Amino acid sequence: MVSKLVFASAVIVTATTFFLFGAYCQHVDVLRNLQKVIQNDPYAFFMRSKLYDSFRFFGINEDEYEEPTRMQQIMKYGFPSMDDVRLYSDFVLSYDRRNRVAHWVYEHLTANCLRNNAGVRRRYAHYLPDMSVPSNFRTDTTDYSCSGFDRGHLAAAGNHKCQQMHCNETFYLTNIAPQVGRGFNRDAWNKLEIYIRELTERYNSVYVCTGPLYMPKEKPSNKYCVEYQVIGPKTIAVPTHFFKVITVESKLPGGSPYMEAYVMPNAPIDSDIDIRGFLSDIKIIERNSGLQFFKGIRRCEFFGTNFKTVHELYKTFQ
Amino acid sequence: MVSKLVFASAVIVTATTFFLFGAYCQHVDVLRNLQKVIQNDPYAFFMRSKLYDSFRFFGINEDEYEEPTRMQQIMKYGFPSMDDVRLYSDFVLSYDRRNRVAHWVYEHLTANCLRNNAGVRRRYAHYLPDMSVPSNFRTDTTDYSCSGFDRGHLAAAGNHKCQQMHCNETFYLTNIAPQVGRGFNRDAWNKLEIYIRELTERYNSVYVCTGPLYMPKEKPSNKYCVEYQVIGPKTIAVPTHFFKVITVESKLPGGSPYMEAYVMPNAPIDSDIDIRGFLSDIKIIERNSGLQFFKGIRRCEFFGTNFKTVHELYKTFQ
Repeated sequence: MVSKLVFASAVIVTATTFFLFGAYCQHVDVLRNLQKVIQNDPYAFFMRSKLYDSFRFFGINEDEYEEPTRMQQIMKYGFPSMDDVRLYSDFVLSYDRRNRVAHWVYEHLTANCLRNNAGVRRRYAHYLPDMSVPSNFRTDTTDYSCSGFDRGHLAAAGNHKCQQMHCNETFYLTNIAPQVGRGFNRDAWNKLEIYIRELTERYNSVYVCTGPLYMPKEKPSNKYCVEYQVIGPKTIAVPTHFFKVITVESKLPGGSPYMEAYVMPNAPIDSDIDIRGFLSDIKIIERNSGLQFFKGIRRCEFFGTNFKTVHELYKTFQ
Repeated sequence: MVSKLVFASAVIVTATTFFLFGAYCQHVDVLRNLQKVIQNDPYAFFMRSKLYDSFRFFGINEDEYEEPTRMQQIMKYGFPSMDDVRLYSDFVLSYDRRNRVAHWVYEHLTANCLRNNAGVRRRYAHYLPDMSVPSNFRTDTTDYSCSGFDRGHLAAAGNHKCQQMHCNETFYLTNIAPQVGRGFNRDAWNKLEIYIRELTERYNSVYVCTGPLYMPKEKPSNKYCVEYQVIGPKTIAVPTHFFKVITVESKLPGGSPYMEAYVMPNAPIDSDIDIRGFLSDIKIIERNSGLQFFKGIRRCEFFGTNFKTVHELYKTFQ
């Protein structure tokens, strides 16, 4: 037999404990589910702090719940824009449905993955339309045929050799843009891609954002105009320029990153010109592309930007 | 005194009840908070079904929690795209940071609000930069000065007369585009805006989506090119065309909506040409703008589209 006082106390303690326990279990369950959405949906990831604010009563340790996904690794330096963001297994892309060329493609490169290429072959991959793009805006290989332009990769195939699928996905036409072949795609642009792969040998991680530009130029009438060709039945825009924004992480723990930005015209480039001649202020890229890089990182937090020679870079930045 | 059996039962029942009660309270609290985010953030609203799926154990009646906000009313027919979506008090806009002109502006018009205009004056409103746009992409009134173009409204000032603030917000430069004045902004385009306001007198609700187009044309070299002028220090794009997609809701309960789409060149238009001469297949607008209208509504669910005469519309559609 139990006394009434003990009985009442026991009921109150049980009620309180189990009320809190129930609330906590529900908190954990909803949070876990939301976490899955945040890990797999770029829009949820983008606004995760607002979503986390919905949980008022129990603290949230983001790190505890978030096992970083490949998307989170690749997008470490922020989304340049949020228009039709698409996740692939080894790169992230924002697709410009109006021009039928990506706004930007973000990659994360490490030496490990570039070396580990046993069995991964570029020739096993084929150019393919990405069927997840609505048919109105989806390009096909026929759009490029007889156009006189190369099907140029934005995320270079040679950067994605860890798995055959990674390499295959770079051949989706969402990752392809019309590029002048001789003198550009096969020469200066290729040199720039090789230089970026070389950086991975010396540093920890290299992040690359690549995209097209449609730059205005002065007309004989003194007016400034944007003018670009469109090719194929789906009228794919031929960009006037391409950019690459490269972020290199130091090997030293806690070291600041280093940044370089390039703008190259989509035209034959004299092979004598050094690629560093195309180094460009990132603000020019931002103004012409409408993108915003490194949100939340002040420019002064970088170790340096756009060093004039490779020698200077290798000497000062470890 | 209480028997041990009763004591044990009471504790178990209390524990279960309060566990569920705690879980339910946490469910309601998190859901309410998330609801607020969904109501105020277009991205959360866009992906609300994924967010709701995080709540597994207690059912969700969306209607119960959602008091429809003005955004939800305006965006009833879906978001044409999700690039830099901005909420104003009486219209919703997606801003094109590259061209410094909106991608689209959505409005919801009713006769009540158009009539109720006591004290609301256009002359109290002033063109103003929207300071919430990052400075790189923000336009100013100086960009338009001496350009030869009108500062043309996308959401017309005359459509937002319920409150002075509604009218004022249409003067934010995010809602403004360079338009040819004589023969277009002050004539044909104005006629189209007046026609839309007249529709509200006969029907329940009118939804209007307005935006720019940059259409390719054939060059003497037989190549197709997109060409458009840019004006001012911030290089604002001058669209080659403008579109309006109009959805009219029937007065009959449960009636299907009717849809019209217009494309007009940003050029002087002969005043003899009837505005219905500019009716256009919505697919042409979608292909050239990269936007997608009426997601989730099949085109066959409309009562009709693009009737050739106003007479036909007024006669058949109630």
